[in-house]
Amino acid sequence: MIPILVVNYKAYPTSHGKIAESIARKASELSSTGKIRIILAVPATEVYRISKIHEDTYIQSVDPVTEGAHTGHVTIEMAEDSGAKGVLLNHSEKKLLYRDIQAILKKAKIETLVCAETPEEAAAVSLLNPTIIAIEPPELIGTGIPVSKAKPEIITDTVKLVRQYNTETIILTGAGISTPDDAIKAMQLGTQGVLIASAVMKARDPLGKLVEFERKMSI
Amino acid sequence: MIPILVVNYKAYPTSHGKIAESIARKASELSSTGKIRIILAVPATEVYRISKIHEDTYIQSVDPVTEGAHTGHVTIEMAEDSGAKGVLLNHSEKKLLYRDIQAILKKAKIETLVCAETPEEAAAVSLLNPTIIAIEPPELIGTGIPVSKAKPEIITDTVKLVRQYNTETIILTGAGISTPDDAIKAMQLGTQGVLIASAVMKARDPLGKLVEFERKMSI
Amino acid sequence: MIPILVVNYKAYPTSHGKIAESIARKASELSSTGKIRIILAVPATEVYRISKIHEDTYIQSVDPVTEGAHTGHVTIEMAEDSGAKGVLLNHSEKKLLYRDIQAILKKAKIETLVCAETPEEAAAVSLLNPTIIAIEPPELIGTGIPVSKAKPEIITDTVKLVRQYNTETIILTGAGISTPDDAIKAMQLGTQGVLIASAVMKARDPLGKLVEFERKMSI
Amino acid sequence: MIPILVVNYKAYPTSHGKIAESIARKASELSSTGKIRIILAVPATEVYRISKIHEDTYIQSVDPVTEGAHTGHVTIEMAEDSGAKGVLLNHSEKKLLYRDIQAILKKAKIETLVCAETPEEAAAVSLLNPTIIAIEPPELIGTGIPVSKAKPEIITDTVKLVRQYNTETIILTGAGISTPDDAIKAMQLGTQGVLIASAVMKARDPLGKLVEFERKMSI
Repeated sequence: MIPILVVNYKAYPTSHGKIAESIARKASELSSTGKIRIILAVPATEVYRISKIHEDTYIQSVDPVTEGAHTGHVTIEMAEDSGAKGVLLNHSEKKLLYRDIQAILKKAKIETLVCAETPEEAAAVSLLNPTIIAIEPPELIGTGIPVSKAKPEIITDTVKLVRQYNTETIILTGAGISTPDDAIKAMQLGTQGVLIASAVMKARDPLGKLVEFERKMSI
Repeated sequence: MIPILVVNYKAYPTSHGKIAESIARKASELSSTGKIRIILAVPATEVYRISKIHEDTYIQSVDPVTEGAHTGHVTIEMAEDSGAKGVLLNHSEKKLLYRDIQAILKKAKIETLVCAETPEEAAAVSLLNPTIIAIEPPELIGTGIPVSKAKPEIITDTVKLVRQYNTETIILTGAGISTPDDAIKAMQLGTQGVLIASAVMKARDPLGKLVEFERKMSI
Repeated sequence: MIPILVVNYKAYPTSHGKIAESIARKASELSSTGKIRIILAVPATEVYRISKIHEDTYIQSVDPVTEGAHTGHVTIEMAEDSGAKGVLLNHSEKKLLYRDIQAILKKAKIETLVCAETPEEAAAVSLLNPTIIAIEPPELIGTGIPVSKAKPEIITDTVKLVRQYNTETIILTGAGISTPDDAIKAMQLGTQGVLIASAVMKARDPLGKLVEFERKMSI
Repeated sequence: MIPILVVNYKAYPTSHGKIAESIARKASELSSTGKIRIILAVPATEVYRISKIHEDTYIQSVDPVTEGAHTGHVTIEMAEDSGAKGVLLNHSEKKLLYRDIQAILKKAKIETLVCAETPEEAAAVSLLNPTIIAIEPPELIGTGIPVSKAKPEIITDTVKLVRQYNTETIILTGAGISTPDDAIKAMQLGTQGVLIASAVMKARDPLGKLVEFERKMSI
């Protein structure tokens, strides 16, 4: 089980255009060692291009609709067709109803990463067998205060509770992870890696920051 | 003022993949005569690829957020960066708040096509000076019952009301347009073209259907 | 454990005014035997008046906000202050995010009835320990096709799955229950009663219909 | 045209219970002079009780649905049945789609007060002929920074623009109004009164604050 680093591009100015592509090239290069898995979660418009550069690219969300008359919606079929290797769902900035997460997971042929805000939500989501669950207390997202330091018990409680129902789903830590040390702490608490965003995407030197995380997290 | 034919790909199975690209190639070919303008409104995931084939491609919607921490959202900046020539907004399947339409229009450097369901909504939208307004009574969308036949007064009322406030915005007719004759009728009622979807996207022969519309509508 | 009959007033014309009050008076009278529990789920505007007539009155939903600057929202505190004995949450016509259900349940001093559309959603909700869970496959709501006949396995699966996680929460059956016999069937499948709406609220004789259910269900 | 003071109860702790009723009694007393009109906008659960105390009571919002199968929704019919003299719509904390505002206004037999965030939105809303429009730049709501001082041109622009389309709708000023002087200023800028909330509802002495406003604003 190698460590997993998910970089959520969000909708930052760096989420599209040249920098977005540079980050993808660097992620591809760093992943090639096989000592770490780097997943990029990108906006719908960027999936096609970024997945050509770095295969391990997820779309940031899809809409809970079936193919048909739905203007302005992105379906799981479109995501798959665009080259997405997986789909991120239920991020605190794009929450979905439980029944909609269930419907999307049922249809998805690609990997699924479902976020949860509490240990109970993580346990509830684990009943649906996603590939990955990320625990992210929303009050810490983007703060630079790592959940692994501020509320370590949320991580350990999540691991304990989820494992009562599901022994296979990968569990990651998110929210406030700003340094490689925070990531190491998250792994020591029993999760297999981290979900980060601003730490890389808003860094003065995004590529350098990515390398820093890779160095420390690689096994 | 050449006639305008907008084809809304919606989220039909034909909205992505090979057929989506064939339709775009045909649209590009038909547009080259200069006797008709064909705009394709495509899903966020398809903008980059389709706009490479047919320049006159719109994104089906964007989210009313500024660049930043917004997972799973598509911004107007992403749309522009992906090659969109314009953005469709406020379709009855993806309605937006008036203040959000205003905010997006203020930022947009590309063309804007805003849908409206009633003559009053069209007039309200016209105060914001979009490039195009499409009047689409939602109860007729996808029915095959053309608004131009079922409720011609909605079209004429819209034209009259909008022109009190705005003399420049292009006005199109939508909802239930299934044959080229419906399109001609819509133009006789004072609008500059039509917004269609299922007529082409769900046709047994989408390319043939597109040609039919082009033949009749071209001047 | 006496049988439970929940009558959801929804927003039918009978949900407010004189008929609404008559139904409440009849429910109060029928409940007084102690052989059945009748819960009325009423709109926010009606809670105060109906709960004066029939003590066992729930509000149909509350908003997931804390007290403060929230125009047009109904808080759990308002519901409690108005005399509600409980709150119905997550009905398929008013779905809530899982984290919001959790937040409301944490604050609620009154009873809670949470709806679920699938056995998995019911299990997920049971982790939050609501007073009651109602399983309601949305495709049958309002159809008159009782879930207890059309999809009995959904009920038995729900009971089995929920009981793995929670042995105390009461489980009810909803969706398509239109006759007392449907209710009996639902109880034979292992649930403690039913959640109905149109069967009574759209009946030509709502009071008579209520009596019918009470007769058959009472023990 | 007497001055109008709208007090939006929002969902503050004072919005229900004994204080809510005391404020209503004081509003009723102060209004009886005929020198000022005081409208109270209250939560759905409170309409029945507050309107018995002070006739000039509005509900804070209604849902854009017709009577029928809509659990957890409040219809205009319920509002009317509960004693509401009017309905507040489209507050920045409960925005509605333009087409939904139009649908509600078409059905409403009671007065309507529609909020707007920009001069253009106010003009757009004025095409629908509500009884009252309130201009409220959302960035100032609850700040204590009165729009009448911080952005007086928003008020004057609104009055000018609305009056091009509608000469009858009453126009009020909202957002950041915290003192009676702010209200006077708003009236000098051409509006007929103000919409306030925290100034009274979060005051140490809500009744005293209400009296202060009434003293200064009365003619």
